[in-house]
Amino acid sequence: MPVKLTAPKAECLLPVNGVKLGFAKAHVRKPDRKDVLVMTLPENSRVAGVFTQNRFCAAPVILCKTHLNETAGIRALLVNTGCANAGTGEDGLKRAKQSCDALSALLNIAPNQVLPFSTGVILEPLPVDKVIAGMPAAIENLTEDNWLNAAEAIMTTDIVAKGTSRQIQLNGKKVTITGISKGSGMIHPNMATMLGYIATDAAVSQSALEAIIQYAVNKSFNCITVDGDTSTNDSLIMMATNLAGNAEITETSADFIVLRDALTDVAIELAQAIVRDGEGATKFMTVTVEGGKDEAECRKVAYAIAHSPLIKTAFFASDPNLGRILAAIGYAGIDDLDVDKLDLYLGDVLVAEKGGRAVSYKEEQGAAIMKESDILVRVVLNRGSENITIWTCDFSYDYVKINADYRS
Amino acid sequence: MPVKLTAPKAECLLPVNGVKLGFAKAHVRKPDRKDVLVMTLPENSRVAGVFTQNRFCAAPVILCKTHLNETAGIRALLVNTGCANAGTGEDGLKRAKQSCDALSALLNIAPNQVLPFSTGVILEPLPVDKVIAGMPAAIENLTEDNWLNAAEAIMTTDIVAKGTSRQIQLNGKKVTITGISKGSGMIHPNMATMLGYIATDAAVSQSALEAIIQYAVNKSFNCITVDGDTSTNDSLIMMATNLAGNAEITETSADFIVLRDALTDVAIELAQAIVRDGEGATKFMTVTVEGGKDEAECRKVAYAIAHSPLIKTAFFASDPNLGRILAAIGYAGIDDLDVDKLDLYLGDVLVAEKGGRAVSYKEEQGAAIMKESDILVRVVLNRGSENITIWTCDFSYDYVKINADYRS
Repeated sequence: MPVKLTAPKAECLLPVNGVKLGFAKAHVRKPDRKDVLVMTLPENSRVAGVFTQNRFCAAPVILCKTHLNETAGIRALLVNTGCANAGTGEDGLKRAKQSCDALSALLNIAPNQVLPFSTGVILEPLPVDKVIAGMPAAIENLTEDNWLNAAEAIMTTDIVAKGTSRQIQLNGKKVTITGISKGSGMIHPNMATMLGYIATDAAVSQSALEAIIQYAVNKSFNCITVDGDTSTNDSLIMMATNLAGNAEITETSADFIVLRDALTDVAIELAQAIVRDGEGATKFMTVTVEGGKDEAECRKVAYAIAHSPLIKTAFFASDPNLGRILAAIGYAGIDDLDVDKLDLYLGDVLVAEKGGRAVSYKEEQGAAIMKESDILVRVVLNRGSENITIWTCDFSYDYVKINADYRS
Repeated sequence: MPVKLTAPKAECLLPVNGVKLGFAKAHVRKPDRKDVLVMTLPENSRVAGVFTQNRFCAAPVILCKTHLNETAGIRALLVNTGCANAGTGEDGLKRAKQSCDALSALLNIAPNQVLPFSTGVILEPLPVDKVIAGMPAAIENLTEDNWLNAAEAIMTTDIVAKGTSRQIQLNGKKVTITGISKGSGMIHPNMATMLGYIATDAAVSQSALEAIIQYAVNKSFNCITVDGDTSTNDSLIMMATNLAGNAEITETSADFIVLRDALTDVAIELAQAIVRDGEGATKFMTVTVEGGKDEAECRKVAYAIAHSPLIKTAFFASDPNLGRILAAIGYAGIDDLDVDKLDLYLGDVLVAEKGGRAVSYKEEQGAAIMKESDILVRVVLNRGSENITIWTCDFSYDYVKINADYRS
């Protein structure tokens, strides 16, 4: 079950001026399930995206990058679940194009004004006829207050729909931000995420939006892992409809940081929600590594801990078998690491100091913290001033069950 | 349950002239369990070792390296289970030294003629008094035909004792090789293994023995993984007692390769046995990556597959959800990988060609192979002439159970 995560209420996902959402049950893989989402944007919207670094990136990812390069006039997004359209070669690209052609004809726009997204099983052909057949129904129910339905329409093994909203002031104008995301397994985003869509009605320049998405992704989706598997389809999209009436934000605007931080805050909440809904998760773990020489080495240590099946199963068992954390730090790949300088904390309890068990540490302290559902692991390397924080979850029977059953 | 692996019969583990083994039930962690092993070697034996690259290497590992540097006259090995004596700082080193001091006094040798080894829980103090109290009983039963008892005395979460023997001819003299190993979880050796001991009565020079151990470890223990966790205590020791009567083998001897390959063969069998007895394993997977530009990139791809929880759980379920293998290849870290050139085989069935699903592939073919307990995954990169083969196991409910319960 998700760790302290419930679906947002429909009325808490605020409409973003100009962004309409419609869904359909298109039977892509399973019956009676919302599995196609269409989003439309008004003219003059800005759109920026970041995508998976997996070399087997999916056909829709290739097409998204092409369309974003070809035109500044993106007007629609199309998402299907049930099939990732990845590992499908030339034929997969053809099918992704067919879906863009069909939607553009229905909306009276150009095919490259559509961004396509797919998520689901890899190595199987996209049933593009079913996706196309679902489009009219999705277009029929396009409205601005459909964000919760949209969040539900992009779920795969997710248990909980994920979305959040913020409102901020820019030059005295109220600006709304709403985002949704999906993801639960195959979560170790590399320069992107599973699927995330964040929209605002702020007026913002294209280059400012691109700066913001890079900043936000590095603080959010690039700081989570469930199982260390980087997906073929990770995509994060930020959209700005330019309808809030504020003066256009550029990188030099006084309010640039206000907008950047609000969008980043939404991205972090959506990314954390993916971990809280990680496949089989029973614990939400925050891993902080401090005192590194650079961010890269902090990241190595944090991910060595977050990817260790031995650590993740010990957390599942609420067993303070914390020597496994030292082992992971030791193999994280810092060749000149002096373990005698290192401190390890669980929550605020000092567990290891100078590379060995802390004299003050009592097993009962570790056991008490391990019973919590939100746990902080803090490593102090004491060799520099850089630090990083990432988020992950434990490894349970249900992770195995979900992934042994996923296609059945 | 172990995958096609049963314990060797006592009479199949052949005595090695000059090597005596004795064990004790010393109650290090659990009652009524063989948990201390003493091995003795005759004068003029050669000993070589390789050890974990984990920066948190255990106190006994540090001491082993020191003693091997200080003296060519190693005469005894001491192993305890139940406590790894890792993450224990200065105090851990002191306790490891105490155990060497005690054994050397009983055997009338110098402390640095003893190599100490520990395996078990990390971050807990070694109960050195218990280990020392067990020594007289172990010395009492020192015999040359005690290899199976020795293999049992070094087990932790292992279900099956692991050992094997070979006999070869060197210059017309019969030479015996016997080895034992232990390990089941925290298995991703890096330049070493969990615990492995291989002895021969061959006469071999020190430099030839060191060349052989490096060769053998790279073909065996450095080609396995259970869970990607590199232990703090990995150690592989090769011993040659020089009693077989053959002319001393050096790197330039005609028979150097005969001895090297026989010792390597034993190392591979012991390494594979660890995977077959991997925690919770139900499948033994051979991952071969061919056609790489260099061995390093083949290794990256092979380990990305072997470490992926999504792939390992699919194999547990006998589900040919093979797109997950493409995803792992894609994130393995080969930046200029052209996926359109890549082929993937399961057993001898072509699953993917030119980066997409093979036209000839039928799901029933994949499903049939997935039901086997020994499965070959073969990736052809088609970008060079290097290749590598590694071995791993699947990821089951029992892996989680074993590691959630291990300390209880």
